[in-house]
Amino acid sequence: MSNPIRVTVWNEGRHEKTHEEIRKVYPNGMHTVIAEALNGAGFSARTATLDDDAEHGLSEKVLAETDVMTWWGHMAHRDVKDEIVERVYNRVLDGMGLIVLHSGHHSKIFRKLMGTTGNLKWRDIGERQRLWVINPAHPIVQGLPNQIVLEHEEMYGEAFDIPTPDEQVFISWYAGGTVFRSGCTWKRGLGKIFYFQPGHEAYPTYYNKEIQQVIINAANWAFTPPSPKLTVEHWKEPFEKVG
Amino acid sequence: MSNPIRVTVWNEGRHEKTHEEIRKVYPNGMHTVIAEALNGAGFSARTATLDDDAEHGLSEKVLAETDVMTWWGHMAHRDVKDEIVERVYNRVLDGMGLIVLHSGHHSKIFRKLMGTTGNLKWRDIGERQRLWVINPAHPIVQGLPNQIVLEHEEMYGEAFDIPTPDEQVFISWYAGGTVFRSGCTWKRGLGKIFYFQPGHEAYPTYYNKEIQQVIINAANWAFTPPSPKLTVEHWKEPFEKVG
Amino acid sequence: MSNPIRVTVWNEGRHEKTHEEIRKVYPNGMHTVIAEALNGAGFSARTATLDDDAEHGLSEKVLAETDVMTWWGHMAHRDVKDEIVERVYNRVLDGMGLIVLHSGHHSKIFRKLMGTTGNLKWRDIGERQRLWVINPAHPIVQGLPNQIVLEHEEMYGEAFDIPTPDEQVFISWYAGGTVFRSGCTWKRGLGKIFYFQPGHEAYPTYYNKEIQQVIINAANWAFTPPSPKLTVEHWKEPFEKVG
Amino acid sequence: MSNPIRVTVWNEGRHEKTHEEIRKVYPNGMHTVIAEALNGAGFSARTATLDDDAEHGLSEKVLAETDVMTWWGHMAHRDVKDEIVERVYNRVLDGMGLIVLHSGHHSKIFRKLMGTTGNLKWRDIGERQRLWVINPAHPIVQGLPNQIVLEHEEMYGEAFDIPTPDEQVFISWYAGGTVFRSGCTWKRGLGKIFYFQPGHEAYPTYYNKEIQQVIINAANWAFTPPSPKLTVEHWKEPFEKVG
Repeated sequence: MSNPIRVTVWNEGRHEKTHEEIRKVYPNGMHTVIAEALNGAGFSARTATLDDDAEHGLSEKVLAETDVMTWWGHMAHRDVKDEIVERVYNRVLDGMGLIVLHSGHHSKIFRKLMGTTGNLKWRDIGERQRLWVINPAHPIVQGLPNQIVLEHEEMYGEAFDIPTPDEQVFISWYAGGTVFRSGCTWKRGLGKIFYFQPGHEAYPTYYNKEIQQVIINAANWAFTPPSPKLTVEHWKEPFEKVG
Repeated sequence: MSNPIRVTVWNEGRHEKTHEEIRKVYPNGMHTVIAEALNGAGFSARTATLDDDAEHGLSEKVLAETDVMTWWGHMAHRDVKDEIVERVYNRVLDGMGLIVLHSGHHSKIFRKLMGTTGNLKWRDIGERQRLWVINPAHPIVQGLPNQIVLEHEEMYGEAFDIPTPDEQVFISWYAGGTVFRSGCTWKRGLGKIFYFQPGHEAYPTYYNKEIQQVIINAANWAFTPPSPKLTVEHWKEPFEKVG
Repeated sequence: MSNPIRVTVWNEGRHEKTHEEIRKVYPNGMHTVIAEALNGAGFSARTATLDDDAEHGLSEKVLAETDVMTWWGHMAHRDVKDEIVERVYNRVLDGMGLIVLHSGHHSKIFRKLMGTTGNLKWRDIGERQRLWVINPAHPIVQGLPNQIVLEHEEMYGEAFDIPTPDEQVFISWYAGGTVFRSGCTWKRGLGKIFYFQPGHEAYPTYYNKEIQQVIINAANWAFTPPSPKLTVEHWKEPFEKVG
Repeated sequence: MSNPIRVTVWNEGRHEKTHEEIRKVYPNGMHTVIAEALNGAGFSARTATLDDDAEHGLSEKVLAETDVMTWWGHMAHRDVKDEIVERVYNRVLDGMGLIVLHSGHHSKIFRKLMGTTGNLKWRDIGERQRLWVINPAHPIVQGLPNQIVLEHEEMYGEAFDIPTPDEQVFISWYAGGTVFRSGCTWKRGLGKIFYFQPGHEAYPTYYNKEIQQVIINAANWAFTPPSPKLTVEHWKEPFEKVG
């Protein structure tokens, strides 16, 4: 039997400490709920948060032991140190999977990997969201129905300033009149990236079993076994031999 | 000054003859309205319909003189002769642009070019549709606002059985809870293809100036100047010279 | 433990019967060599050939028991009955993986799924081919070096008349001056498709362990577990409830 | 008649000053040759270089008057100030086209827009390069033959560390055994980007009429008329009205 995939669930973790109503929803933080779902599905998941230590819980050692990372941030994107962003960035290029959740669309790491602003429309009135599966054979939607309904979520709307996704997995409908590319994949270097829209801190979204299934599937999909390196390489093979 | 782009606006044309309430909306057929919009924008547009003649108005001569074709069909897809479909297909591969409208998603020509069924969800209760621009720098949306609102249209919903589009231009929202990839592009051979969802026969959609602008932009985009041929070719250049 | 993936290795099988020099390379046909490699890797692989029976060995029962099919054809594409092509086509849309090998680029099934001619340049002088991995994190190249070298293969050259691939896995170099998109993926309906260029009948390509590894990886990748259906569906959910 | 498209041809410009043999090839710098080709084709092209002034010739005013920029850099990527890179980056997201040439694959601006390292294989022995057109209906190859042959160029080889291109236009063959995705497009924000491989400073590549034609076509393609903005936007339209 192969070793379990090692996931680090990263969370800014500020809302849960500073807002009483958020703490009621996630008493131990969103990261705990996500990590428990992953551990229950056979992963080896640990958590890390912005205020864990001087490295936001993301030491070189932690990254070396991480196959896939999930990232949730919102109010404190600017407090994430550039050197830690650089460290995560290099680890993605080296093959670590990255699942960017909800307001992570504006995180330093997502913007750096995308090369765009991640801008979008938004409105938080808790309107109904339907996530439609538009790529039914994709590994990320295995075992799911053809739509996921969330009674209350924050609306994110197009135009979403991202590069063309490699794969479009979900497109969302919101009751108030907008649509959003809510599940998208890209590759950067050897690393696979999945952006997944649901997860405003005020709603119990990460307790939803279907949302958990998407994250579980995405963590499996984003795992990349060791591959040929992408290096700058002066090709020295003699011309006469290869031509 | 260059010659105008030559467009053939093809329409099944049956609904307008057999249904009184459709004739009220389009007394001279949808094709006439579309062709007038194109001619008003500087194209040289003609029309052709299923019952024009034994070749559905699509003789070899007409095709040879067509740079871009628009296609609307619905109730009589099966009455389109296979040899005419083959003729249009070959002309697309040879560089003719093709704009497939609304229920044309199930036409023989679209299915043959896509390699899929074109299946989808649908409901005709005249619900509100919003077409969101998700690719704002694309030539097809030049001069348009960031959304087009149609008060009444037929709903088409995901999952839409199409190959991954080369470019996603619009995604639609429908009041009743669904989304749809309502503006998509592909290439086949030397030909460019644009699928555009609006245009149920019972609604005055093709009189809408923004919808007309999309079709005008698409006809410009779909025009391909003469290009290198895509042929089966035994490459005879001597090995010694090229290696 | 899960059941093995069921592969049907289909081969035209004519060259091996009619040409003495081909029979020397593949005494029991190319299909036998490919199937043995797959069985050795844990698949449940069977073979079928054009002349097996009136259905080319592809009865409804065989297709129902096939998760992934490989396809090799060349001199007798026209002898494959249209109704069998239709059967394979429908099975792909329903989720069967399809690996199209070498001269299968001109098969009826590949052209039908692509919507293009599959035309290309070619020259058979046994020149050296290098298959470069351009997508090093893709499952299809797991365990492979960054290039595969074949001392003698038939050259296929661009422009290759295919739709834009969903993913580009390999690009080939040929000593005589050409390049080719030699490993490409697409989706059609629920089915995954991989085109892989090597495998002219006169060369022992399918005995090559790296080529076998690509086919093994592709068969794993192309397997799709049961997924939501892509159907034509009148959506009857009451408008009031969903909006 | 419409106004000409305004191009700023940016060049590092160091090799031409410090290396006698490069000065012989480009006595007035590569930028002069490229700008002359563009001006001859009806563009309004100006030049700017790294050492022009404290802003590398790229003041706010220059950028505001630039529709499309071409970028060549190599030995001094690190000398380009981060604030100027940021300025160019924002202008691209705002709709300026960008044509990145040759060793610009390692420039700060290209890496920032791509989100990857731009790493690749390389060898400079002046081997023969063939640029094959693989997308013959693309505007960037209008008027070109199906391949461009350069007798002597620097080799760049796969794997090239870039995001999946939106469109693949050219793939190159090099005599010494490698291939390269030598013409690729992407979109970032409202800006279109084209990477084009040829142009080592020691070879007279930018005098080649076919290479000039590619750059001319690319400058036309990369021009984006004013489009809807991609902003962070709190959507205030009343829920009741839009739902």
